[in-house]
Amino acid sequence: MSKKGKVYAVGIGPGNIEHMTIKAYNTIKDSEVIVGYKTYIDLIKSLIHDKEIISYGMKSEKERCKKAVDLARQGKIVSIISSGDVGIYGMAGLLLEVADQNKSTKTMEIEIVPGVTASVAAAASIGAPIMHDYVSISLSDLLTDWEVIEKRVEMAARGDFVICLYNPKSKGRQRQIEIAHDTLLKHKSEETVVAIATNVKRQNEKITITTLKDMLKHSIDMFTTVIIGNSKTHMSVDDQFMVTPRGYKI
Amino acid sequence: MSKKGKVYAVGIGPGNIEHMTIKAYNTIKDSEVIVGYKTYIDLIKSLIHDKEIISYGMKSEKERCKKAVDLARQGKIVSIISSGDVGIYGMAGLLLEVADQNKSTKTMEIEIVPGVTASVAAAASIGAPIMHDYVSISLSDLLTDWEVIEKRVEMAARGDFVICLYNPKSKGRQRQIEIAHDTLLKHKSEETVVAIATNVKRQNEKITITTLKDMLKHSIDMFTTVIIGNSKTHMSVDDQFMVTPRGYKI
Repeated sequence: MSKKGKVYAVGIGPGNIEHMTIKAYNTIKDSEVIVGYKTYIDLIKSLIHDKEIISYGMKSEKERCKKAVDLARQGKIVSIISSGDVGIYGMAGLLLEVADQNKSTKTMEIEIVPGVTASVAAAASIGAPIMHDYVSISLSDLLTDWEVIEKRVEMAARGDFVICLYNPKSKGRQRQIEIAHDTLLKHKSEETVVAIATNVKRQNEKITITTLKDMLKHSIDMFTTVIIGNSKTHMSVDDQFMVTPRGYKI
Repeated sequence: MSKKGKVYAVGIGPGNIEHMTIKAYNTIKDSEVIVGYKTYIDLIKSLIHDKEIISYGMKSEKERCKKAVDLARQGKIVSIISSGDVGIYGMAGLLLEVADQNKSTKTMEIEIVPGVTASVAAAASIGAPIMHDYVSISLSDLLTDWEVIEKRVEMAARGDFVICLYNPKSKGRQRQIEIAHDTLLKHKSEETVVAIATNVKRQNEKITITTLKDMLKHSIDMFTTVIIGNSKTHMSVDDQFMVTPRGYKI
């Protein structure tokens, strides 16, 4: 009998290999085939030069998952990769949905390997901005109605959460961050501390500390995570670090 | 001149060493002193048998930070550890606040090393429940007014976020999860899928899938993370996995 194939959905962390978990590293090393978006494949190419690599452009998520499932049904050990954590705006969910549709799990297995997501990596580069209750919102309305996203931005602001914005802006989506900004200003002080973190833990990492009032004056792109503090977030240690206090008496 | 000391605030991940990042592993290996809560020290003891270990009981967070800062001012390389990510309900924020108070960073350095937080690790063991916008809320009111927490629970429910609850219950805090549950039921369907994840990625990992209606019938303790789905979260792949769809057409 031939061996049973398996797909691992692997979060490779923010970008450089040292922020990958040991489990993610070993899983990729032990896989026969690596499937992923070209940009992410490039981030780990030093790890996978001896592997079969199936690399895709943007917006081919379903094809990637189908390919990974097909290969596993043929008995292959496959890693399908996402940057950050694979379970936060990554490939894990779609992979499970595709496997469910194909009734594939009778003939192959699936395992999710977690990773350090963009907001956590960005927070570490900035200090400790998400030490207290926070929300994660993607501003991409490609797959989600804008009304749902805007309501979430409003509720997050009214709850005085720290707010991490994924996919804040791209060439095709310029207005969303402006509308979200207007909503935030209705419920949060314009002096709220904001960090704009681009290419975190990659070459050309750039961190800008600003305020809610001024945040749109700075460069934001599809490699940016925006972290908006709560009402108690402040700069600390000679303005080196952004900190949201947990509430300890110092 | 003596060497400059440094404190690394290190997130060791959910518990087993393989879910630690390579950077966290190497940082701990390269440190002279390890400071932490005894339970977390025990999780990594195979890594640190040749180190000076300063282990504390619960509720000694400030002492731990002061000790780490003092040692670094004496020129030592110190890792202060938290389980999960050190920047999410961990030691990073308090460490920076203590260092700020002591004006310590003229004589020592601080670096934050991110890790896989409990909600991300739990999600991977369950499937893909936090594939879409989510909030993280700690139900511990030791340091935060309960009114603030309760408002956040309400706003999270009204925004139809996936909700990850940290510190849901302990010996001394039994009522908080009951009040939160009442609030959630006002805004979310009682059939909402809920996962109760205890000791994730440790020995005796236990995952229970239930509904919002029934969640309090199951065992919840201080090693539990509770993940409450959004209105579209469902079970998938023969009920093996909990999935919150991103919105792709399958």
